Amino acid sequence: MKIDLNCDMGESFGVYRLGFDEEMMPHITSANIACGFHAGDPIVMERTISLAKSHGVSAGAHPGFPDLVGFGRRSMELTPHEVRNDLIYQVGALSAFAQIEGLSLQHVKPHGQFYNLAAKDEHMSRSICEAILALDKNLILVALSGSKMAEIASKSGLKVAREAFADRAYHRDGSLVSRKTEGSVIHDPKRVAERVIRMVQEGKVQSIEGDLIDLEVDSICVHGDTPGAVDLARAIRGNLEGAGITALPMGKFL
Amino acid sequence: MKIDLNCDMGESFGVYRLGFDEEMMPHITSANIACGFHAGDPIVMERTISLAKSHGVSAGAHPGFPDLVGFGRRSMELTPHEVRNDLIYQVGALSAFAQIEGLSLQHVKPHGQFYNLAAKDEHMSRSICEAILALDKNLILVALSGSKMAEIASKSGLKVAREAFADRAYHRDGSLVSRKTEGSVIHDPKRVAERVIRMVQEGKVQSIEGDLIDLEVDSICVHGDTPGAVDLARAIRGNLEGAGITALPMGKFL
Amino acid sequence: MKIDLNCDMGESFGVYRLGFDEEMMPHITSANIACGFHAGDPIVMERTISLAKSHGVSAGAHPGFPDLVGFGRRSMELTPHEVRNDLIYQVGALSAFAQIEGLSLQHVKPHGQFYNLAAKDEHMSRSICEAILALDKNLILVALSGSKMAEIASKSGLKVAREAFADRAYHRDGSLVSRKTEGSVIHDPKRVAERVIRMVQEGKVQSIEGDLIDLEVDSICVHGDTPGAVDLARAIRGNLEGAGITALPMGKFL
Amino acid sequence: MKIDLNCDMGESFGVYRLGFDEEMMPHITSANIACGFHAGDPIVMERTISLAKSHGVSAGAHPGFPDLVGFGRRSMELTPHEVRNDLIYQVGALSAFAQIEGLSLQHVKPHGQFYNLAAKDEHMSRSICEAILALDKNLILVALSGSKMAEIASKSGLKVAREAFADRAYHRDGSLVSRKTEGSVIHDPKRVAERVIRMVQEGKVQSIEGDLIDLEVDSICVHGDTPGAVDLARAIRGNLEGAGITALPMGKFL
Repeated sequence: MKIDLNCDMGESFGVYRLGFDEEMMPHITSANIACGFHAGDPIVMERTISLAKSHGVSAGAHPGFPDLVGFGRRSMELTPHEVRNDLIYQVGALSAFAQIEGLSLQHVKPHGQFYNLAAKDEHMSRSICEAILALDKNLILVALSGSKMAEIASKSGLKVAREAFADRAYHRDGSLVSRKTEGSVIHDPKRVAERVIRMVQEGKVQSIEGDLIDLEVDSICVHGDTPGAVDLARAIRGNLEGAGITALPMGKFL
Repeated sequence: MKIDLNCDMGESFGVYRLGFDEEMMPHITSANIACGFHAGDPIVMERTISLAKSHGVSAGAHPGFPDLVGFGRRSMELTPHEVRNDLIYQVGALSAFAQIEGLSLQHVKPHGQFYNLAAKDEHMSRSICEAILALDKNLILVALSGSKMAEIASKSGLKVAREAFADRAYHRDGSLVSRKTEGSVIHDPKRVAERVIRMVQEGKVQSIEGDLIDLEVDSICVHGDTPGAVDLARAIRGNLEGAGITALPMGKFL
Repeated sequence: MKIDLNCDMGESFGVYRLGFDEEMMPHITSANIACGFHAGDPIVMERTISLAKSHGVSAGAHPGFPDLVGFGRRSMELTPHEVRNDLIYQVGALSAFAQIEGLSLQHVKPHGQFYNLAAKDEHMSRSICEAILALDKNLILVALSGSKMAEIASKSGLKVAREAFADRAYHRDGSLVSRKTEGSVIHDPKRVAERVIRMVQEGKVQSIEGDLIDLEVDSICVHGDTPGAVDLARAIRGNLEGAGITALPMGKFL
Repeated sequence: MKIDLNCDMGESFGVYRLGFDEEMMPHITSANIACGFHAGDPIVMERTISLAKSHGVSAGAHPGFPDLVGFGRRSMELTPHEVRNDLIYQVGALSAFAQIEGLSLQHVKPHGQFYNLAAKDEHMSRSICEAILALDKNLILVALSGSKMAEIASKSGLKVAREAFADRAYHRDGSLVSRKTEGSVIHDPKRVAERVIRMVQEGKVQSIEGDLIDLEVDSICVHGDTPGAVDLARAIRGNLEGAGITALPMGKFL
């Protein structure tokens, strides 16, 4: 039994520091590295690639909307063509730093509202999948488990890692509970770690409405910039190993 | 006898148009494509790569300082490490668009003050050369003929295209006459075309002081955004062919 | 009978030139000057303020979304607080250039999607109106005639200039016909000029559906960056004067 | 006996936090607020103005070079005209937030390399002084004590606050010891506080070479983003009061 643990990384910028990258690296298997649009810069990108390499963590691109002040969290009405080209640009930029270190990128995970909007828009999803396939057919797309985008990516022949969120509540229909809703984020490390085990072992999660729902998952997203993030990641990783589940970069088993 | 004709391209941005890219393409052999820092954006980059491809023009990266409002023409005191990483980022981003079109980049030509400052700074030149070699040892660096950078690049094992400027006056020591000096730019198309022939056939140019100086040249830079640019490029290309000189992408003969 | 003619100005950026600012100035009475977020920069802003002053044209701020590559034409999901502060920032920056020239700003006209989204959102409109009142109660807000924003601004005690578009088709309900629809833009200068006269004299316009609808108007927007823009502005201004209508900066009669 | 204590503030940006603004405010008398070019954004600017107001701290503009990724610490070769207009733009933007809160800006202190380069360049200094005078003749320019800029500003009729650095070592000629030199920053709070007392009471400081040199000072700069910054500020403020020196906003006594 295998699972990938992914985390957003390299979101510092210039003098600004964000996230516990160094402390998180020992506990994860895949790093989603910001590419300079919503966060990150050429110095940070190189440092993060190098940090991932030294921990045996596989590196992927984490492209975002061109909105640094909004950290890529504000919806922008880009055309599918703009979304596609913004992704190609960012993946290309990060690839060069990987190349310099003798690495290839393992995956692409869109960031923030880029992830959310693209996931729902068929035309946009299709355009992104075609671009990734044209860039490198070995690149894995990380997509919300059960989403339109995961489905379109699979059909297009692209490798997909179905993603679940360790500490986020799910609705009965498999969608994430909005962060504005009470109970949307689960803070108890023990409960989070147990949920993760169940997701991996049984492919199930208990929804906020109480039902047990199906949730196929190849990669678990852990946060790297919240208080307690490092402890939570350590707990999840420890529990997985205690349960005989191997944490591995997604590229090793997909 | 062979020569490359290079021109800066893809310097439009968003709604802003700059340069006669479509009109220039038939007359040149190598396009230096802006990468988003001093000019260019992901839509413009894709369009320019595609335009170059359709004309059989070889594509190269034209990375600049991160200064859009100053168009990369203002000196910035970057560290060699920052310069190197800004270059890697930009070359990587453009490479991805080339890849999507089934092309490889042929060359890298730093833009504006990036070109000027890096050319004089040994430490910076060395750091740039190492980065390009690590990225792709087939990439050619376009450097001012006779410059420190051309010398360092050659010694480092990097392929170098020694560049001369068709319409710029030279000093007796091989340096360019400052644009602020009277006579620094030659406007007469006939005279420019004749100078180019002499550069290619004899490896010589008449300096502003009157002497005939040596100038080894693999590629001639023509401007693409000045009034008369297209006519000048046509005249140069026509004269070269009239003199039995073949205009070819630098990658074909270096 | 009096009317204001407004035009977007100062939308150049760095080396990039946009719009026929110098040629348009003699024909208009109010200039909406970009403030650096969607277009414009500190050099362009100063030049445009100075150009307006020399033509006796009144200057106003034309704040946009923080999206240079998208020219402020892409929707961004900003909070009312972000919208308000982005507006305050931009109006303040332009005011300083006006102050240096011994001028006060006459008006504020949001740009592109900022104009469109704010106009429909009550909460946003209210937040913008309060901010403008707090900045300077003499500032006039230019708002689409008949819009929610025009209504809210009036109620808040803010001076409002109700705006109509010289060359844009209207629906029967007073809304603008989408640019994607056939016939949304009227290109015939004669017809445009006649429509303008009717708007001013009768407060009416013929909708695309054929009905004659009411349209109260204090200011007519003319475009300054399209082919034929200068001729169209000249025709409108000439026809207004021929019909005995005085073109005046909105601040002179509101 | 009176002295001002100034501190750089509002240097956060979007999700990024920098500096102990809230903790520093009780200990200072003037806040230099970033204006969005090297740091700061419209939300941060408003928050910082409001924070200063609530502590009775006087607000000033802290304009920087247009280089967010370099935090305005990298030299940029701007023309005096560009420097002047970048300053006007930023001061104007911040002024608007002050205005909304019913405040006027008290001072202008250029940031980082803007401060360093402008201070040495007569032409640039003159152009900056004229601009500030034209904007508001009550604005105080904060300039390095003994610098060319302080001299030019005084002669131009501009109010000047001569600034000294609490924890930085000085050379015998009154210039600051480069941060790259051993001993350039003094870390011992007690020693820093004693130096400050001596600067204020005697107008003298001991140089790194050992001599006691003259140093006229109206305002002491304390840092707000280093470890121990808050304790250092508290110690300085406490010692000043213990020595019977009143800490007051510069505008109250200049």
